[in-house]
Parts: sequence; C-alpha cells; structure tokens
Amino acid sequence: MERLSVTTSRREEMVNVTAEVQRLVAGKGWSEGLLYLWCPHTTAALTVNEAADPDVVRDMVANLARLVPHRGDYRHAEGNSDAHIKSSLLGPGLTLIVADGRIQLGTWQGVFLCEGDGPRNRQVWAAFLASR
Amino acid sequence: MERLSVTTSRREEMVNVTAEVQRLVAGKGWSEGLLYLWCPHTTAALTVNEAADPDVVRDMVANLARLVPHRGDYRHAEGNSDAHIKSSLLGPGLTLIVADGRIQLGTWQGVFLCEGDGPRNRQVWAAFLASR
Amino acid sequence: MERLSVTTSRREEMVNVTAEVQRLVAGKGWSEGLLYLWCPHTTAALTVNEAADPDVVRDMVANLARLVPHRGDYRHAEGNSDAHIKSSLLGPGLTLIVADGRIQLGTWQGVFLCEGDGPRNRQVWAAFLASR
Repeated sequence: MERLSVTTSRREEMVNVTAEVQRLVAGKGWSEGLLYLWCPHTTAALTVNEAADPDVVRDMVANLARLVPHRGDYRHAEGNSDAHIKSSLLGPGLTLIVADGRIQLGTWQGVFLCEGDGPRNRQVWAAFLASR
Repeated sequence: MERLSVTTSRREEMVNVTAEVQRLVAGKGWSEGLLYLWCPHTTAALTVNEAADPDVVRDMVANLARLVPHRGDYRHAEGNSDAHIKSSLLGPGLTLIVADGRIQLGTWQGVFLCEGDGPRNRQVWAAFLASR
Repeated sequence: MERLSVTTSRREEMVNVTAEVQRLVAGKGWSEGLLYLWCPHTTAALTVNEAADPDVVRDMVANLARLVPHRGDYRHAEGNSDAHIKSSLLGPGLTLIVADGRIQLGTWQGVFLCEGDGPRNRQVWAAFLASR
C-alpha cells in the first residue's frame, strides 16, 4: 500500500490530485490494471469531476454546502457533521483504470480530494491490482 | 479496456444498460472476478437501483433535480453545473461481481447510466480483473 | 462469493458491520488485495464513516432524511422511494484495501450497512481479489 500526502488550505475545497496520482503510477511502473485510492478520513472524500473550468469545483463546493450546511440539526460535538455527511455522499474510495502505464480519464476529468473540515494534512492510500 | 456506447434521449434520464453489460461479459468470456465500469464524462454517472418499476427511476430523476436544480447558484458558464454535481454524488465508477460468467445483482437491481446533460452519445469503459 | 447476513431493527439506521467484515477476511485467510462488498438490495447501501461517536451516525441518518424525506413527490407505490434514492447517493458497493490479513481503515472509520426501508434481513456479498 502506498501513501500520498495532500495539504488542504481551507475548510471546504476540492484539491486536484491528478498529477500526483499519475506520478505515483509512473513511479511504481504500474501498467495495466485497477488502481484503488482510499481516503482514510471521515471528513474528506475522493471524487472525479471537471478539472478544466475552476467554476465547476466552485459550484460543487458551494452547492454541497447548501445541501448539507455547516450549521444545522447536528448533535456531534465537533461541529463537523456536515463534513462527515458529505464524505459519505461523495465516497471515500475511488477506482481508476490503468492502461499503458497511465490512469485512464475522460477528456475533462480530474481526480479531486474533497476537503470538508480543513485546513488539514490528509492522506490518500493507494493499492494496485495488475490485470496480467 | 472495452467500450460500450449509450445514446441518451433527454436532458436527464437513467438508461438501463444491464443487458449490454451482461452481453459484454458473456462475449469476452469473463467468468470469475470483478468488472469495473467507468463513465468518462463529468455530467453523467453510473448507478445501480431498481429496474422493475419505472417509477423508481422517475422518482430518482425528479428528486435529484429537486436537490440539485438546473438553475441555481452556479458560475460555470455552460449551464450544466447541476449535472456535474449529480455526477459526483452518484459517482462515475461502478464495480460489479462476476461469477459463473454473469454479473451478480440482487433480484431487483439493474445497472443505469445516469444522464445529466443530454441528449448525448455517451461511453462506458469496462475493465475486468479475474479472480483466478 | 461469500455472504454476510445483517438484521436491521428500524426503518432507517446505519449498522456497524466492521467486525463481521474483518472476521470474514480473517476466516478466509485473505491477506493482501482488494475486498469488494456489495449490497444486493435497492433500498439499502454501504458506506464508511466515523464509528466512534454514535452522534455522527445519528446526524447522518437525520440529515439524509431531511434531504430525501420519506413522504414527497414520489410515484413508486411501495412508499420507499426515499430509500431507493439514498441507496444510489450512498452507493451499493464498497471496496476495501486488505493488507496483512486485515481491512485497512483510518483511525475513526467503520463500515456501515445503511438501512433505508427496514427492519429487514439484509445480505452483504463479498468478493476478494488477491494482489499477489
């Protein structure tokens, strides 16, 4: 199991980690198979979405906060229940297809760590299963 | 990596692709393992839900549009931020267990491509990892 | 493919199944690879979130019910469209990294079956792909 470190700078943000993930795949010589990424935190998540126009990420962060606001009907004393809920809605795990030594993404897709209760130092775990 | 093509006919809909996926598995002779499906688009997604009563899909499409409406607090100029957000909520990837040469689903489950900004021609990528 | 049984006791709840999953991994002697869990139901799901403070789960169940209420704009006659929608938002499948014979989770993470239309007897299917 490999580990990537991601430093977030705001309470809520999406950090593009596509290049770091691709660098890991290249560095390990992983060629054909499935890469599994895991966020070992309960107030962050992993997702894939458009990496071209930063307004997409802005709209996503703003609207997730509208759906699951920071303050609301919460009993958890740490004041971050919104981040816990968003973590499960987006999901802590992400599988990516690896072919020809590269993660396979659509034209507009990038891999994002979704921070819900930052700024923090976060980890992303990675495991690879070769197809041949 | 294999590719399926899916043509959608409305802006928002869920297209049952279970038969196409099963046909791919049978055609490739994939018998035991994990099938990974990937939607390379940022305004569509993959999910599994009830394929028996079409009202389930209708209720899902209608209520996702209620939660993340087409028009709202969006800055992305293409007017499809709702589709981007729903794509991450539902998720672009889907793993299915394959046993005895068939995808293993519960009695009521079907595999759906969730269109959020159609009508369009969509792709679903597929990778298989054999368990033995 | 292995099967776990989970009995739920309320209409909506999250049942911590971490120990059962770990017991399965140990009992099968699965050491290094990816464990894939699948919920073959369309009104339940699998997720990972904080297992320490039960208020986190309480806040999640309450707020998911706020976002997708039991009664609403639904046509599906069984009265459980909310559970179908939440199933797709949380997702029916969950991949876990297995290393040294144990599922690898962050400090606060636990694996939960999310019941949306209980009480019922539920199944969780499990498939393992070894990495070596």
